[in-house]
Amino acid sequence: MRVLILGGDGYLGWPTAMRLAARGDDVMVVDNYLRRTLARETGSEPLLTTLDLAVRSETFAAITGRSLRVEIGDCADRAFMDRVFADFQPEAVVHYAEQPSAPYSMMGYEQARLTLHNNIGTTFNVIWSVMQHVPDAHIVKLGTMGEYGTPNIDIEEGWIDIEHKGRSDRFLFPRQGGSLYHTTKILDTDLLWFYVRTHNLRVTDLMQGPVYGMSTREADCDQRLAPHFHYDDIFGTVLNRFLVQAVAGIPLTVYGSGEQTRGFLNLEDTLQCVELSLRSPARPGELRILNQFTERFSVRQLAERVCDVGNRIGLEVSVAPIQNPRKEREDHYYNPANRALLDLGLEPHYLTDDVLAGLLERVRPHRDAIDTRRIKPRVRWAER
Amino acid sequence: MRVLILGGDGYLGWPTAMRLAARGDDVMVVDNYLRRTLARETGSEPLLTTLDLAVRSETFAAITGRSLRVEIGDCADRAFMDRVFADFQPEAVVHYAEQPSAPYSMMGYEQARLTLHNNIGTTFNVIWSVMQHVPDAHIVKLGTMGEYGTPNIDIEEGWIDIEHKGRSDRFLFPRQGGSLYHTTKILDTDLLWFYVRTHNLRVTDLMQGPVYGMSTREADCDQRLAPHFHYDDIFGTVLNRFLVQAVAGIPLTVYGSGEQTRGFLNLEDTLQCVELSLRSPARPGELRILNQFTERFSVRQLAERVCDVGNRIGLEVSVAPIQNPRKEREDHYYNPANRALLDLGLEPHYLTDDVLAGLLERVRPHRDAIDTRRIKPRVRWAER
Repeated sequence: MRVLILGGDGYLGWPTAMRLAARGDDVMVVDNYLRRTLARETGSEPLLTTLDLAVRSETFAAITGRSLRVEIGDCADRAFMDRVFADFQPEAVVHYAEQPSAPYSMMGYEQARLTLHNNIGTTFNVIWSVMQHVPDAHIVKLGTMGEYGTPNIDIEEGWIDIEHKGRSDRFLFPRQGGSLYHTTKILDTDLLWFYVRTHNLRVTDLMQGPVYGMSTREADCDQRLAPHFHYDDIFGTVLNRFLVQAVAGIPLTVYGSGEQTRGFLNLEDTLQCVELSLRSPARPGELRILNQFTERFSVRQLAERVCDVGNRIGLEVSVAPIQNPRKEREDHYYNPANRALLDLGLEPHYLTDDVLAGLLERVRPHRDAIDTRRIKPRVRWAER
Repeated sequence: MRVLILGGDGYLGWPTAMRLAARGDDVMVVDNYLRRTLARETGSEPLLTTLDLAVRSETFAAITGRSLRVEIGDCADRAFMDRVFADFQPEAVVHYAEQPSAPYSMMGYEQARLTLHNNIGTTFNVIWSVMQHVPDAHIVKLGTMGEYGTPNIDIEEGWIDIEHKGRSDRFLFPRQGGSLYHTTKILDTDLLWFYVRTHNLRVTDLMQGPVYGMSTREADCDQRLAPHFHYDDIFGTVLNRFLVQAVAGIPLTVYGSGEQTRGFLNLEDTLQCVELSLRSPARPGELRILNQFTERFSVRQLAERVCDVGNRIGLEVSVAPIQNPRKEREDHYYNPANRALLDLGLEPHYLTDDVLAGLLERVRPHRDAIDTRRIKPRVRWAER
């Protein structure tokens, strides 16, 4: 299958590209290194320097004999996307090409503007490029569980049947994001749903929880193939941050009470989910929404797990709740469904103590590379 | 009250400006004439030439002794908006500054891109300009009843209590628009709701049905003060189109079965609704959503009414259903609430036969100005 991966330099994009190429797909990756630029501008470089896509794809080819095509450019640039689609004629498009940080989107006007226009702009161009070049192609879009927020009812997979005053209909599940970043993902879903209805597009929108880990089958072949690993307050996901804090001997920064609960998954499982979605595509005119996580934890539970396991393997780990820089409910009901991907064949890698220890051991050799200035929250959700 | 009217050249913006100024408010109108540009580009000029804002505001001042401030510029341009807000320090902002045509948004990529980026861009700048300059100002935003689409349940005013598996919560009412234009209004609501929650903005989002008429107290003082009146398939609302077709002796172009039902209102009532909203503002942290229409008609009913009344006053009117250029449900349940504005004091001007006859008589003298090429649908919702 010819698969176009937009945002192929990313934490998820690059491992996805390697996985699909290793499985025999014809893969093209596209990126404009926006996340690298923003990380540099905010003093949030990842733990280890990652090579550029050209060098990494050459390395990957040299090791595996599988080649990847690389195009550097902006998915919000229509002329560039036209050239890519006309040239590659993808059968599937995996769309990761978005500004991925909630705190970044809350820094100020310019960061909010960039997040809004980039994320809506790339999604809009993906839609139109598919409509005009490859209308039967399957779009796999990365959304976020954060689109749902923390409602007081069970979270279904994208859709809900509502009965109201004796009548009923089926609707998109209500959504309410906790940052502008999350809100742009809601707008993406609205846009996709409109064009799915009017133009019979085939779309899978993956509502993903926070991802952790840096290990995948392909990345583990060679240090140079590792995905970037952010541990800062802006681009780092919560468990990855805790792992680095544990290794650095910094108390784990739990925001507020830590009772905030989310659905998490291992990087390996993101790859499985995306691949399963590609192998069983959405039908024409279908917006298929799948909730993509394997386990639920509160932030406090995660911190305590890291603390326990870290101390057992000889690190000195403690937990230090700090004032929550975000505006979010800390004590809330949370019961999201995640049956659909299991039914498609997902075999979860759960966060066992052994897995946690492995993650910590993987970070440990890089202790000296940790910059402790980029761990405490530098962005606050503005109050009025 | 200092009221900033964005999109003050528009069908609703200009009459609103005159109404508020006549009532003693300090009014500034802003526009970049985008709708005029798009109307010219698509061969969709209004029935009568309207003077530019500078000349109209001078005319208005000469007649009434009330002056209006005029600024020409783009609300999606941040520097311009900064200057306007810093200078005028509005206590309320009425936001009409959007590309207003559903068919225009469905013409092709460039028109869709312009609609998306303009409408989201202006709303985003309104939000940030208010946050940074006048955080207590009340934003009155024009949405559309089309955000709700035609669900199989009663349409409430913006919010719905959902009970699901024994638990309940309150959510934005589900929305699903029939064009990209309508979808951008959904995105606007999502954006506003996010910043209302995080920054305690005060917002009234008016979900308005199709408006008809060209007469208002102020506009009727002098022909030169009339709002523009579109009768074409792109910028004309359905009843205004029918009025012109009736006068021109062209059979009324009912799209499909004509069973599509909507909530309509007289231009005079739009002015009342906006004014009532301004006089009873939303609270800080409140997104107040009001459904703004006074009567429900199917398109077929409207055509038959125009036909009956037109023939009675000596016009030769007939109805000619044509293939529906839109993708929409023609036979659907429709029961939207509209209690809130009545409770605020709205006194509806209903579409009586006398009112209809008056509308037709008002168009009649301009029969020779009607360009019959701009009446049949020139835009089709693309099929795949």
